[in-house]
Amino acid sequence: MTIYFKNAYIKNAYSVVGRNEYDISIKGDLHINDYYLSKKSFEQGESELLIKSISGLLSKCKKKETDIDVALSGDLQSQILASTLAYRNFSIPFLGLYSACATFCEGLIIGSNLLENKGINNIIISTSANNLASEKQFRFPIEYGAIRKYVNTFTATAAVSTLLTKEKTEIKIESATIGTVVDIGYNDANNFGAVMALSASKTISEHLKETNRSSEYYDIILTGDLGVYGVEILKELLRNEYKINATNIVDAGSILLKDTSVVAGGSGPVCLPLILFNKILKEKYKKILLVATGALHSKTSVNLKESIPNISHVVSLEVL
Amino acid sequence: MTIYFKNAYIKNAYSVVGRNEYDISIKGDLHINDYYLSKKSFEQGESELLIKSISGLLSKCKKKETDIDVALSGDLQSQILASTLAYRNFSIPFLGLYSACATFCEGLIIGSNLLENKGINNIIISTSANNLASEKQFRFPIEYGAIRKYVNTFTATAAVSTLLTKEKTEIKIESATIGTVVDIGYNDANNFGAVMALSASKTISEHLKETNRSSEYYDIILTGDLGVYGVEILKELLRNEYKINATNIVDAGSILLKDTSVVAGGSGPVCLPLILFNKILKEKYKKILLVATGALHSKTSVNLKESIPNISHVVSLEVL
Repeated sequence: MTIYFKNAYIKNAYSVVGRNEYDISIKGDLHINDYYLSKKSFEQGESELLIKSISGLLSKCKKKETDIDVALSGDLQSQILASTLAYRNFSIPFLGLYSACATFCEGLIIGSNLLENKGINNIIISTSANNLASEKQFRFPIEYGAIRKYVNTFTATAAVSTLLTKEKTEIKIESATIGTVVDIGYNDANNFGAVMALSASKTISEHLKETNRSSEYYDIILTGDLGVYGVEILKELLRNEYKINATNIVDAGSILLKDTSVVAGGSGPVCLPLILFNKILKEKYKKILLVATGALHSKTSVNLKESIPNISHVVSLEVL
Repeated sequence: MTIYFKNAYIKNAYSVVGRNEYDISIKGDLHINDYYLSKKSFEQGESELLIKSISGLLSKCKKKETDIDVALSGDLQSQILASTLAYRNFSIPFLGLYSACATFCEGLIIGSNLLENKGINNIIISTSANNLASEKQFRFPIEYGAIRKYVNTFTATAAVSTLLTKEKTEIKIESATIGTVVDIGYNDANNFGAVMALSASKTISEHLKETNRSSEYYDIILTGDLGVYGVEILKELLRNEYKINATNIVDAGSILLKDTSVVAGGSGPVCLPLILFNKILKEKYKKILLVATGALHSKTSVNLKESIPNISHVVSLEVL
């Protein structure tokens, strides 16, 4: 389902980057060393990350809370707690999203569409994750010392807030393809790349077909976050199932944390915007296809041995 | 933040109603007696409720999956599991929402706005709850026999799916006011009515001010779900804080389950659409203000003794 936008532009972004995520190429706007951010839990710490990214964005754009018409936010915590605890500090109309690691693109899609309404001019899209909150929620608290598989990704600790506006800027949101929920019957919560490659291949091929474009139309196709192994499965699926030989696919998770001991790379909803704003948009790409991939499981579904539904949303950016 | 819609109409709805929720006035389209729906968990049972409401809606409207451009869905389960497990069975582009019991109005708002895009014509908004999944998630599994307070509401077991369309029907979605997250510092997860009355009063007063309407402009103001005590707190807040004497407020939760042993009434995201489609729209109201109220807590925030952020979204319907 591909839709086109007339009035949607990205004005700015503010990234708060965690202890392990900060490196030479990913500096972000603010570097935080403490997973707790002086709070008593990782969950509340994540909310603080988000608060800092929202406040940071407002002051970077010289906007007041009252200048923002709507905020869209989501995260990995149950009942998107990080987002709701953060946004109670801001007097900004709020719509909560849940799309796991595909949240950033879901936000861009709904936000770009909200800008079609003449009453709406400025929108914040935000997302966050705290590695230690996510690991507890989806796998094991790290102090359990559970053995990690080589296909395990590492949820990036960060928060990114983005300002969308009708005002023409250098970054236009041109079109988007909304994904469907798919499920191959695979239930390994330690191998999200393999789980999510299916929906990524499906939405990318739909996007290219519906826009009548080839993969070379884009200077870069940025997935987030399949990890080192998942992105190879995606390329194979595109080649074998859809006859698409995309040599320009780069995975945000495979860029983030690539020099650390994390074998399969970074993951989480912030992975894609973190790499987009702090690396990709600083390079000379003109046409960028964002592919946000999400594994739609929960602790309950893992315990029920349910297979993992997954979804990918695609957004086309034009750098003017 | 009030926005207006030009092209948004409700075409139809399909309600699947649980064991205790079915009564003389609330028949719904399908009555289900089993909390499990032959699945092995309440969570998967809830997903089945949702599947039945989506399939039911499609056949009631004589639509195929491919006729639907987007589905928006959310529920109370962590990581909106009921919605994602349900929608993996449908080839419909999907956007996940989380706004607790305010989800139905959030869906109407985002959905009505998506209809402004010329590529989008038909949207499904759905939501669900299973009492036994929610009680486990937010309070105690009922077999623990924890004592309930007299202000406790009872999460309604049901699923409702609604078809939104550009095609002119009798029910027009005229405008909406998007709420902000507020928090009075109150943390009693057994008294949601008291928690949510604050945001309800705030968004209602904003809506009336921004549209330059008095409360009498509406034939009925339907809140969902403050319960028997919460709705009285709302009336008092409107009177004392905003000088609004609204005599036409009726609470969906106070209508649902009112003849049972549940003291404070029904609650949950389906409460509002269930009463709207099965009772209010069958009566002679012409101007209806929907006020969906949501408590934005989680099991984690309750254990952290965090106060409960809350949000209310308001939607104005005109019956033509």
